[in-house]
Amino acid sequence: MGSKSSLMEFDLDSFSARDWERPTDADAVRFAMVGLGWWTREHAIPAVENADYCATTVLVSSSTEKAEEVAADLEGIEGTLTYDEYADGAATDAYDAVYVCTPNGLHRDHVEAAAARDKAILCEKPLEATVEDAQALVDACREADVPLMVAYRLQTEPVARRARELIRDGAIGDVVSILGHMSDTILDAADETSWRFDPDLAGGTTLNDIGIYPLNTIRFILEEDPQAVYARTESEQPAYEGTDEHAAFQLEFPDGKLASCTVTHSATVTSSLRFVGTEGELSIEGLFFPNTQKVLRVSGTDIESEYQPEPVDQMREEFDYFANRLQRGLDPEPDGEHGMVDMRVIRALYESAERGQRVKLDL
Amino acid sequence: MGSKSSLMEFDLDSFSARDWERPTDADAVRFAMVGLGWWTREHAIPAVENADYCATTVLVSSSTEKAEEVAADLEGIEGTLTYDEYADGAATDAYDAVYVCTPNGLHRDHVEAAAARDKAILCEKPLEATVEDAQALVDACREADVPLMVAYRLQTEPVARRARELIRDGAIGDVVSILGHMSDTILDAADETSWRFDPDLAGGTTLNDIGIYPLNTIRFILEEDPQAVYARTESEQPAYEGTDEHAAFQLEFPDGKLASCTVTHSATVTSSLRFVGTEGELSIEGLFFPNTQKVLRVSGTDIESEYQPEPVDQMREEFDYFANRLQRGLDPEPDGEHGMVDMRVIRALYESAERGQRVKLDL
Repeated sequence: MGSKSSLMEFDLDSFSARDWERPTDADAVRFAMVGLGWWTREHAIPAVENADYCATTVLVSSSTEKAEEVAADLEGIEGTLTYDEYADGAATDAYDAVYVCTPNGLHRDHVEAAAARDKAILCEKPLEATVEDAQALVDACREADVPLMVAYRLQTEPVARRARELIRDGAIGDVVSILGHMSDTILDAADETSWRFDPDLAGGTTLNDIGIYPLNTIRFILEEDPQAVYARTESEQPAYEGTDEHAAFQLEFPDGKLASCTVTHSATVTSSLRFVGTEGELSIEGLFFPNTQKVLRVSGTDIESEYQPEPVDQMREEFDYFANRLQRGLDPEPDGEHGMVDMRVIRALYESAERGQRVKLDL
Repeated sequence: MGSKSSLMEFDLDSFSARDWERPTDADAVRFAMVGLGWWTREHAIPAVENADYCATTVLVSSSTEKAEEVAADLEGIEGTLTYDEYADGAATDAYDAVYVCTPNGLHRDHVEAAAARDKAILCEKPLEATVEDAQALVDACREADVPLMVAYRLQTEPVARRARELIRDGAIGDVVSILGHMSDTILDAADETSWRFDPDLAGGTTLNDIGIYPLNTIRFILEEDPQAVYARTESEQPAYEGTDEHAAFQLEFPDGKLASCTVTHSATVTSSLRFVGTEGELSIEGLFFPNTQKVLRVSGTDIESEYQPEPVDQMREEFDYFANRLQRGLDPEPDGEHGMVDMRVIRALYESAERGQRVKLDL
């Protein structure tokens, strides 16, 4: 911890506190997991197994065999469905909510099926492969009056929430510049036949898949949306032909605040985010990965601190937040309209990369 | 120091070593300081007072009074000249080299005067206010066959040199993404009547004045030049009307490497530089300021280290390097052609900001 008297002293317990949590005596929220790819199997299902306010009761996949294979290792599964059976309304009594984690271009169908059965929806980001399908998805939830949360797991990550509080409380003065980066080596986890390389199913590759992390987290921390953007994309390896392997992009926020970001699916696994203000600076290492050590450093007129809190399971925080909000009868956030902003920004980024020009947004 | 076995173990003594230094029995190089603004008085003259291979013998300023006032606090001054007296060749026997640190748009005249008298030249960056005047300056030095070095003090900063070696030796694999930032609060040091706010004398404001630090240092460390650029500039305070207060810019390097940078003259004094590669990451905090603590962190397959070497005086390193090269009869680097690349890149950045479009460079 720092040497200056602190503007806002978080001890490490309060640092990681669930400021959103209000336990109730309501039953656990029962989830149908829609899509059993590696993210659902390795991150979502284990997170829910350890969660306080929810449980997995139904598994939905391309085949009964795949769903049953995943179910064999789990307790409490009441139904294993194909996508068709799910769409036809099988086992609707066995779940209260769905987690949709399929290729982006299939989200709309799965969300509309859930909305038609009055289920609450936690849908992975980006919302869909196109702005039009995303809007239809959001409209369907609004018309059915079902809760829709977009699965931005950073918004319930304590380090991102404390960063937002510090900046809101003036720890670094007015923000002027922002720098963000995220990289991984997706070809280690997925081969080039993956839907992630199919523009129709994904809607884009690197900007779409991981550019959304700095984009959305900067929006969350600043509590503002971009007004104009620019992007440049590059593709070096054959798997990325016709799509984007590396990207650099700029976001113009109100009052002259400029964000510069880089993302790549072909570099070491790392991420960073930095806010420079009139009175100081706040940086976070490792923010965008789900279970890793984060380091938040903040230096300002009245604060000089470094925090390395015990890592949380970001997916567990997200699921418990969503479930606890439902238990309390409250709509979870970020909602569909929030997710639509990223859809329009990402479309503008690709348009900019295509044209080599700045693109203004009319959000 | 790190826990992994190290690819290249610098101890802190060798870390800060002057790898360029070869003492000779030649006389100290005698400098005329041309331009006695705050940078010359507070940084250059004190650096030379402590230097091993050079000395200040002549002071050149707008008035004899100003030059004499500065001389009163110094030993060994043999001449105090006005710019006109300097141009007319006064006291040329009393100096061997000039350090030109005037408004950018006056560099050409002062350099040409020195070249005409066969003096070696250390000229501040950017070389001039326009590409055309910079080219004329470089041509004049080549025609007179005098050494011209552009005063990029980062190129003799040990932390930048060690970063270059680490990357060259493969510590982080192939570089994919680069992030850079520099900010200060120039209105604390200069009021709005300063030449820095006059496009004719400066050639630009923030991009020109401090954007050149990440631009040139990335070029130096990668040993490559940008092929295309994009920039966005913003001006919020009245002093910056018609010029740039904040900027974000992208540089496209060969093989899909993308750099994203932000600079501002209206934020806390801070700087950072980060290289993300296929096998690791290297970041430097505080690099661009002359006498401050730097922190270099490198993490890769075979290395995991943090270096916080004793800060050097960057201006002393620069002057001693320049002088030691002259003593050995060698041309100092970076030369005029190297400086011309930045001139063309900065012109392209401003053109890009004006048009809202990517600009390709034909370097």
